[in-house]
Amino acid sequence: MLLTDATHDPALKSWVESANTPDHDFPIQNLPFARMRPAGADDEPWRIGVAIGDHVLDIKLARQQSPWGEGIDALLAPLAEGDLAAFMTLGPRAWTLVREALSMALAADSDQAPFLELCLLDPARLEYSLPCRIGDYSDFYAGIHHARTVGSLFRPDNPLLPNYPWVPIGYHGRASSVVVQGGTVRRPLGQTRGSGGDSGEPTFGPCRRLDYELELGLWIGAGNDLGERVDMEEAEKRLFGITPLNDWSARDIQAWEYQPLGPFLSKSFATFVSPWVVTFEALAPFRRPFRRAPGEPQPLPYLDSLRNRECGALDIQVEAWLQTARMKAARQPAVRLSRASVLEAAYWTPAQLVAHHTSNGCNLQVGDLLGTGTLSGPQPGQGGSLLELSGGGKAPLALPGGEQRTFLEDGDTLTLKAWCEAPGAVRIGLGAVTGTIEAAA
Amino acid sequence: MLLTDATHDPALKSWVESANTPDHDFPIQNLPFARMRPAGADDEPWRIGVAIGDHVLDIKLARQQSPWGEGIDALLAPLAEGDLAAFMTLGPRAWTLVREALSMALAADSDQAPFLELCLLDPARLEYSLPCRIGDYSDFYAGIHHARTVGSLFRPDNPLLPNYPWVPIGYHGRASSVVVQGGTVRRPLGQTRGSGGDSGEPTFGPCRRLDYELELGLWIGAGNDLGERVDMEEAEKRLFGITPLNDWSARDIQAWEYQPLGPFLSKSFATFVSPWVVTFEALAPFRRPFRRAPGEPQPLPYLDSLRNRECGALDIQVEAWLQTARMKAARQPAVRLSRASVLEAAYWTPAQLVAHHTSNGCNLQVGDLLGTGTLSGPQPGQGGSLLELSGGGKAPLALPGGEQRTFLEDGDTLTLKAWCEAPGAVRIGLGAVTGTIEAAA
Repeated sequence: MLLTDATHDPALKSWVESANTPDHDFPIQNLPFARMRPAGADDEPWRIGVAIGDHVLDIKLARQQSPWGEGIDALLAPLAEGDLAAFMTLGPRAWTLVREALSMALAADSDQAPFLELCLLDPARLEYSLPCRIGDYSDFYAGIHHARTVGSLFRPDNPLLPNYPWVPIGYHGRASSVVVQGGTVRRPLGQTRGSGGDSGEPTFGPCRRLDYELELGLWIGAGNDLGERVDMEEAEKRLFGITPLNDWSARDIQAWEYQPLGPFLSKSFATFVSPWVVTFEALAPFRRPFRRAPGEPQPLPYLDSLRNRECGALDIQVEAWLQTARMKAARQPAVRLSRASVLEAAYWTPAQLVAHHTSNGCNLQVGDLLGTGTLSGPQPGQGGSLLELSGGGKAPLALPGGEQRTFLEDGDTLTLKAWCEAPGAVRIGLGAVTGTIEAAA
Repeated sequence: MLLTDATHDPALKSWVESANTPDHDFPIQNLPFARMRPAGADDEPWRIGVAIGDHVLDIKLARQQSPWGEGIDALLAPLAEGDLAAFMTLGPRAWTLVREALSMALAADSDQAPFLELCLLDPARLEYSLPCRIGDYSDFYAGIHHARTVGSLFRPDNPLLPNYPWVPIGYHGRASSVVVQGGTVRRPLGQTRGSGGDSGEPTFGPCRRLDYELELGLWIGAGNDLGERVDMEEAEKRLFGITPLNDWSARDIQAWEYQPLGPFLSKSFATFVSPWVVTFEALAPFRRPFRRAPGEPQPLPYLDSLRNRECGALDIQVEAWLQTARMKAARQPAVRLSRASVLEAAYWTPAQLVAHHTSNGCNLQVGDLLGTGTLSGPQPGQGGSLLELSGGGKAPLALPGGEQRTFLEDGDTLTLKAWCEAPGAVRIGLGAVTGTIEAAA
């Protein structure tokens, strides 16, 4: 995983011509997985597809239609059966072998092209499910600028709590309400502080401060037994893939409910992920050294390793875009709300999140999802949520066409995007997560 | 569920003689389920058993060996296959029919006795698994005396936060580390505040303030779709069963990590439940009116119903017992640490927890587990955790034999028990949850 190999070669081209388009999300160097089937075909079994340019390679068909190298056919079987968890359970060596086989099969000089051409699907005609069953979903708070900005709204003199530089802060999230993006999110109802403040009677009704959070999700590909720790050297091998993640948040519900046990119903009404799982192997060209800024404490030994210092961090760009109902009606394009570099935003690396999570013996399982926390840049205007961008709702954002926003309104469509680019590497996209706000029931 | 029926008749006796012993946990009025198989028989499939006196009725055998009334055989099929979730999915009408059929089959005058005698197993020769896969585990904070006592340790002047009387406070827990009782719990490692306090460097090592929490767990038997609320009238029908639950807690890890997002690694190293699922139907004779004490605010309308006011509360007794390694060596029995009445301890009813949990559209699923929160009585010495009983670790408890405890030590065995008793009803037990502390790895 540390070093790039032939599958990352920037000179590599595919016989799927659209994959060679500059700045396409899905060049042959990417090869992400999704669980899919023809749209509306409720009786068709799910199978895994691999994105390549403007198409999706159906692994079920590809396994039937094309010859594969020795041993590869068996590794493709769980993918053909739509079971990404079973594939992940085969382990990192299998992940690498399949990546190599897919790369060779889709390369411009592949003799499998005539067979595999028959196995390309049009993504517009597909529907997607979660890539696998999520056992547990944990959400971290690794975005230091987010933590500082949100903290300053509550504690202007002391925005970052004393534990922040030491503990990868996180909390248990709700697994059942994690869904694949593309649909609507219904404005939740909830209990909020009443007009009389803390001493008055609270009210129950539709959320008035509905927000998004710009995060990345990490898919766990190999677990550990209860009582067993995963150390830093091993931690990264447990990570299979990555996805943009929208941690929809009801700020008014959150403010009233979160003391003393943390966010609960303010989060569990919906969390959106992309259907596409970009593998950690595909991220190899975008690994960077992990470094603490001067004056920041070094991580405790259980959160430190040579490998992490050399290449534990990820160079990923993330963006949030908004298109309001009025913008849609006027055929105005979406407007970018923020952009941030994960290298700047994330205080902890993925390996540190895994090592910390298991440091008490907590058992991670194949298919678990870890959220990074909101990824905001250091500058005003780089906040990964409206809470930050609107100064806690006090400074409305001006939108094209004269509209304003403090928080999300019904009909708003919010899209998160993520991608990697670096000198000497082909850009890869992590896909997008889109959702539209629906009025409360 | 509201009214008792023939299965609760206190005059009812079983042909399983031990079930007729006064104060037995498992009289014929109880009929709890567990997922079990012969101990050590790794190749034997799991099946559901029903506790009756000193025996366990194997539903797989019982279905083969005995004639059953029309339609019952099909309802027993998922139990015979060890799939309690599939049985729950059949719905409350099926739960009632099977309870009636089991009650008649095990009653003293049953003509099925000669067949079913062959289907009774010795619980000492069985092993148990979780009764079903837990999708999500949520833990509430419904024990008001616990909340007040713990709050007073941190905020002497203001022990209960303003939201407490209004919001059924809860948080997402970790599903993967919920295990069936009977084994050991390894003392977790973790990061804790250093000797320099908030400004000093924290340390990483074995937990020094290991604690238990005396709770009940509620098994969800029917779910709701994402975005759909379950109102109070409907909420109780979603509850299938109940179990004692030990929410093992690492207080020093918790104190350092929990701000601002709540408990995380201080909880996720282990949560123990009993293998026995006592059904809500069995609890019918122990339903009591829900009432707020004078001066307490009435619940908001979404947490209120006539049925809840009439019989939403449960009259259950809970206890915690400790046997230290030295007591074991000296053959001294366990000592009771605390006892509480759930009627006094719980500020919210099970139906209110379900209605609140789904009030934002969060989807509960069959097999989800809800913890009540620590159940402490109003008096000192009735605390459901050592944190409370030792005044935050400042007032050690004197134990028989001259020992003292502030928090749990290696070799300590902690047992939680719960049962129901009431005039005119046969006492039923909720089983026990036992765990022994093992030294840190």
